Amino acid sequence: MIIGKVVGNVWATKKDETLNGLKLLVIQKKSQKNQEDTFVAADAVGAGFGDCVLIANGNAARKALGKNHVAVDATVVGIIDEVEVTS
Amino acid sequence: MIIGKVVGNVWATKKDETLNGLKLLVIQKKSQKNQEDTFVAADAVGAGFGDCVLIANGNAARKALGKNHVAVDATVVGIIDEVEVTS
Amino acid sequence: MIIGKVVGNVWATKKDETLNGLKLLVIQKKSQKNQEDTFVAADAVGAGFGDCVLIANGNAARKALGKNHVAVDATVVGIIDEVEVTS
Amino acid sequence: MIIGKVVGNVWATKKDETLNGLKLLVIQKKSQKNQEDTFVAADAVGAGFGDCVLIANGNAARKALGKNHVAVDATVVGIIDEVEVTS
Amino acid sequence: MIIGKVVGNVWATKKDETLNGLKLLVIQKKSQKNQEDTFVAADAVGAGFGDCVLIANGNAARKALGKNHVAVDATVVGIIDEVEVTS
Repeated sequence: MIIGKVVGNVWATKKDETLNGLKLLVIQKKSQKNQEDTFVAADAVGAGFGDCVLIANGNAARKALGKNHVAVDATVVGIIDEVEVTS
Repeated sequence: MIIGKVVGNVWATKKDETLNGLKLLVIQKKSQKNQEDTFVAADAVGAGFGDCVLIANGNAARKALGKNHVAVDATVVGIIDEVEVTS
Repeated sequence: MIIGKVVGNVWATKKDETLNGLKLLVIQKKSQKNQEDTFVAADAVGAGFGDCVLIANGNAARKALGKNHVAVDATVVGIIDEVEVTS
Repeated sequence: MIIGKVVGNVWATKKDETLNGLKLLVIQKKSQKNQEDTFVAADAVGAGFGDCVLIANGNAARKALGKNHVAVDATVVGIIDEVEVTS
Repeated sequence: MIIGKVVGNVWATKKDETLNGLKLLVIQKKSQKNQEDTFVAADAVGAGFGDCVLIANGNAARKALGKNHVAVDATVVGIIDEVEVTS
């Protein structure tokens, strides 16, 4: 899974019907090399702007939504309280 | 999912029959590091040149086309109205 | 899907039996950043040296071969006539 | 699979219920180019801080947990005793 | 699929039971940009140190082992006799 930060939302009127009702969040991926990349994930746990979150990709993304037919390949599966890292 | 921009089309007469009838769009991937990469996605929502779009990859790409047997690994699943990002 | 160019072949006598009879092509991936990376894809449409081709990855690669049991994760699914891109 | 090092833990009270009871480890990926990237993996073998571990991704990650419905895309599947590499 | 070179072995006593009996090889990925990255693949064709090999990823990796339940996401599916590439 990936650690990222919610930095915004995506709005799309014309979209696949399986995405209807899903909140689509813009996620900034944090990596030690400070290379920043953004992608979009569906929300499954009520995450919002500024939250540090855990994202699952691929089939796991649909497991979190409980719907195997949705056209989603990334989902927020946790709002992180603490990342405890010792270098 | 990935945010990208439709920058063209791909035409292929000799292709897997499951691709017949699908519009194949050239997508330029936008990332904050301004590294530009292009790839091809099938269209599922009527996207066209210049549109800012949302792309799903892997199995999710076939869910959006409603056909699990197609040889597609990336599909445009939304035409983005607005990307609201606060850094 | 990825746009690439067929730049060669791979020959392997000792290989997984599900690969028997498949043509294994060396593909050079084209990306705007001119970062060249090579990988191997099975051929499903009669592609040959120098062809500009469309490659599907993951489960989609096996869909194109019509055999879900083959140990293949990338397949050439189209010979590209034209890539129409307007920057 | 990927070789990595356990460098910490992630705590998330609000998370997908399929993650309940799973230990979520922060993994630092080792690559010869010394590009360090971190990601999160569920633990399936009792790994802990400082361990050199083997991580499986995608569907394989859920196979290791024996539960196909969990929203996990990376799992620690081995604690490495030795990596024998001759350049 | 990926072309790589077998550069070593990984030994792990504490591991997922589905990995028992599998030879775990350290693979160095060759790419034209000379970016070297290493990963681990299970062996399905009797490959050994120094062999130039073909690796399949994801579900294809498990197809080569004939066991869909193993926690493996990369498998050596061929020992390469020759890579014929014309630039």
